[in-house]
Order: sequence, then structure tokens, then C-alpha cells
Amino acid sequence: MKLLSFLHRGQPGWGVAQGDEVAVLTSQWPDLASALQAGSQAIGQALQASRERLPIAGLTFLPPVAASRKIVCVGLNYGRHVAETGGELPRHPSLFVRFADTLVGHQADVWRPLASTRYDFEGELAVVIGKAGRRIPAERALAHVAGYTCMAENSVRDFQKHSAQVTPGKNFLRSGALGPWVTTSDEIPDPAALQVITRLNGEVMQDGQVADLIFPIPELIAYISTFTPLAPGDVIATGTPEGVGARRTPPRFMVAGDVLEVDIPGVGRLSNRVADEPADPIEESTEEHGNG
Amino acid sequence: MKLLSFLHRGQPGWGVAQGDEVAVLTSQWPDLASALQAGSQAIGQALQASRERLPIAGLTFLPPVAASRKIVCVGLNYGRHVAETGGELPRHPSLFVRFADTLVGHQADVWRPLASTRYDFEGELAVVIGKAGRRIPAERALAHVAGYTCMAENSVRDFQKHSAQVTPGKNFLRSGALGPWVTTSDEIPDPAALQVITRLNGEVMQDGQVADLIFPIPELIAYISTFTPLAPGDVIATGTPEGVGARRTPPRFMVAGDVLEVDIPGVGRLSNRVADEPADPIEESTEEHGNG
Repeated sequence: MKLLSFLHRGQPGWGVAQGDEVAVLTSQWPDLASALQAGSQAIGQALQASRERLPIAGLTFLPPVAASRKIVCVGLNYGRHVAETGGELPRHPSLFVRFADTLVGHQADVWRPLASTRYDFEGELAVVIGKAGRRIPAERALAHVAGYTCMAENSVRDFQKHSAQVTPGKNFLRSGALGPWVTTSDEIPDPAALQVITRLNGEVMQDGQVADLIFPIPELIAYISTFTPLAPGDVIATGTPEGVGARRTPPRFMVAGDVLEVDIPGVGRLSNRVADEPADPIEESTEEHGNG
Repeated sequence: MKLLSFLHRGQPGWGVAQGDEVAVLTSQWPDLASALQAGSQAIGQALQASRERLPIAGLTFLPPVAASRKIVCVGLNYGRHVAETGGELPRHPSLFVRFADTLVGHQADVWRPLASTRYDFEGELAVVIGKAGRRIPAERALAHVAGYTCMAENSVRDFQKHSAQVTPGKNFLRSGALGPWVTTSDEIPDPAALQVITRLNGEVMQDGQVADLIFPIPELIAYISTFTPLAPGDVIATGTPEGVGARRTPPRFMVAGDVLEVDIPGVGRLSNRVADEPADPIEESTEEHGNG
């Protein structure tokens, strides 16, 4: 199954792709994360009873899972990317957190921040948790995965290097994207066989094999759940392969009008256009956000 | 005003301290963060109309603001703490994120993790945002502060040093605490005049002046809001002064039975006992958590 979140009559909704259409299931569970908690079998039954269909072509996509969930990202998890950044092979996963409001859905604009011109792409495979757990052994970890999606885990390089902690460079509003949907794990028997391709304006910039991860997905889940409980809807971004813009000669940073694509055959193809962040004063904004 | 969150008939509730009692305001706003959004004046009016009172002595405290909010923490923000860790004075704030489920309320047990014996204390002043904003200028930043509270921003030192990113050591379940309440900013005309004292079993371990912050509160708010929108209920932990257990000779890590107190005169005194994390298998847990 491909599980999608989108705007439906002005409100967040979600459903399951069926060919060119999506079966809307918002009346059964308010969001995709709640449905993951109920499990694939329950989703399948609800799907059979569902009546409402919408054409996928006309949807406004939202990040498939977002509000109030943990988004844990792994840095430096492909050997050749570690090499291009000049570091040594890590002994433990290097982890940071993204707030949910840093990510938009498929086809939405991502924002190059007002505060920087060093806005770089990072295509990644993201794991979506389906079954809660703490101290999950690596050998049972894949049973806790609901499915997989694509992440544009974009970085603002100067802010990322302001201190040893990468938090600021990874948390600009609408700087990244998640989607287009969660492809459930029954369709991905071996995530290590996946390929992650990042294109900028159609040109391949990154092309990595998940088999090359320094810390494979089961080890990531085991390590992360050592300290924090994982729950349905939580997201783990597994790291980016070599080829980022900052390490090219000359460097290639993103500008307004660029089209970024994270393509993981078998999972989905996430596409977002880059726009300049609006300069409107928003100090008084009461904008909602979750997750912090 | 002192704004408290607590369990009320088995559900999260909140209210305003009135002498030895709390005026319960849960029926006006579901949580403290929603009330902060409405503003002090609206809270004051609701207070006059409120009828229900509970004795503070009998409360089960919750973190005053927690679920689904941003918790941004500053590392290395007191010069002498930077010196004791052997680093250089930073040019930008060093920031990391804590998930909400890492923090318990006043008087609840904090957990020494099963996975480590290097569980250390860090007493800190925490700022609670009251007015939303992005790109907030430092000179107007204090107008965005609803109030102040105490944080036990405890760290698991070995996990903190597994990589350059401190995320794992700062995100163990129930490893820290927030409270006892939010003291509104009208009672704290100058937060730089505050003193932060950390006691372990009654002995003073840390004693810092907020005036010594390398990055004062207005600068922190300006920097953080450069990349992420701040909203009512968001929390900024301002950093810990010198004297942490890992830098003592011999090192002093916390063990079950220790009582940790973060005392900020004029704001509040947060007290928590240390307990060993239960070893029960919780892999199947469906425990709720917010914020990621």
C-alpha cells in the first residue's frame, strides 16, 4: 500500500493510493500515524469499506507523517559521504532532530532561507515506525517498520557549522520535504536493496545504495530506541550519500526555481521546487506547529 | 503569576497558584500553552471567574509545558563551564533539541538509564515563549517571553560523546525535569539578575549567575528565531553553569535515591528524586509521546 496525506476540503486528510486515485480514509482515523498504530490489516479492511475517491493528480500533498512525532536524522552514514566531508568513520550513529515544520509535502515549495545562500540538498531514505518499542533488538527491528518514504533532508551549510551541533542548519522553516507517500514494508522485503537518487533540474547529483549504510536500518532502530521510545509515525532519516552541493567544485547551492527530486525506485519520487523565503514580517504570526 | 500543570482526575490540567492552593483553569483552556497564547490579561480575568481550588501540597506535578512544543537547549553558555569542559569560547550558540518525553514534572522521579552509569546533573534556567515570532530582534525579544521555569537538563555523558552530536545523551526517557511552574515575566523584570543553584542531596554543586551567560536570553531568542518560528509554550533552556558531576574529582554521577534540586530564587525550586529505570520489557508499549 501507498499511504498519503493531503489537504481535503481545507483540512489535513489521508488515504491509500489505488491506481490514479486515492481512497480517502480520514473518517476512520484522523491521520496516517493513528492508522499505522491500528496496523496494516485494519487499514486494509477500512479500505474495502471506503467509498470516497480523489484523483491523485489534483492533490495538495502534505508530509505523510509530521505533527507531534519524533524525526530523528542520521548524519554521515554513507562511507563515501564521510570521506567527502573529511571525517573519520564513526563508531556510533551521529544523530540530530528536525522539527516537523522544517518539512513540506510532495510538490510543495521548499524555501531557501533569507538568512543564507548556502542552501544544499540531501536526498535520503526515511523509515516510518509502525509499532511502538523501546530497546528494540536489531534482529526484530524491521518488524517495527510500517514503511518507507523519501526525504529531502536539506541543510543550510553555514548555520550547520556555527557550532559542533548541526541543529540550526537542519531546522530552517520549510527547508526540507517528506513524501510523496509511505510505501508499506510488505512491498519492500529488503530495504538494503534500495537505491537513493537525488536529481537537481533533472541532473543526477547523488546516487547511493542503502546497502552501503555504515549503520544499517536495524542497527539504527536498536541504537535510537536505547534512549527514546519509538511510536507509530516516528521517522528516521537514514543519512545522505556522497555528492552534496557543498562538496562539489565549484559548490552548487540551490536557488529559486531549482527543482529537487529524491527518487527511490519502489518507494516513490519526491519532487519539490525551490522558492525564496518570503520576506514578510511574521513576528506576530501565530502559525501552528507541532513536534516542536 | 505562577502557572502550574498537574494531574487532575487522572487527566492533565493546569491552573494558577494562589497561596497554598491552585485555581484550576482547565475548563477555560485545555493546557497552559493555549492559555499563554491567550495572554496574561485573559488568564487574569479567567482567574477571577474561577471557582475550583486544590491544595498545591497534594498535586502530582506535570512539566508546565510539554507536549508537541519545541524544546531548544543551549550547550556551553557559561564561560567557566566552557573552561571546565576544555573548549573554546563559542561564536554562535550551540543548540540541541530535547523530546518532551525526556522531561518529568516537579517531584516526579527522574530515571537513571539502564544503559549507562554516567548520569549527570545540569541545573538551568528555562525560558517559556508567550508570543509567537520569527526573526525576532534581540531588542524586542523579552516581549515574547511568557515566563521562566527551572530545568534539570540532565545528561548521559557516554551517550552524549558517542558522536559530535549530543542528541542521544540528552534524550533518554524521563532523564530530566521541568518546573515546578512558570513564573510569569512581570515578576522577573530582569532575568539576567537571576541565580541558578543546583543541589544534590542538599549540597550545592552548581551556583551560576544568569548575568554570566555568553549568549544572553535576548540574543538566544533572536538567533533561534532566525531559523525556526517560536510559539507560545516553546521552551529555551539557557545552558548550565560550571560544577557538573563529570568534571569533578572524583566524578560524581547520580544514583538511585539521590535528590536533585534546581533552585532559582524568584522563579521556583524544582525537586526530583533519582530512580533506576525499570527493566520491564516495554518493546510492545504503545506509550504516548508528543513533541517528538
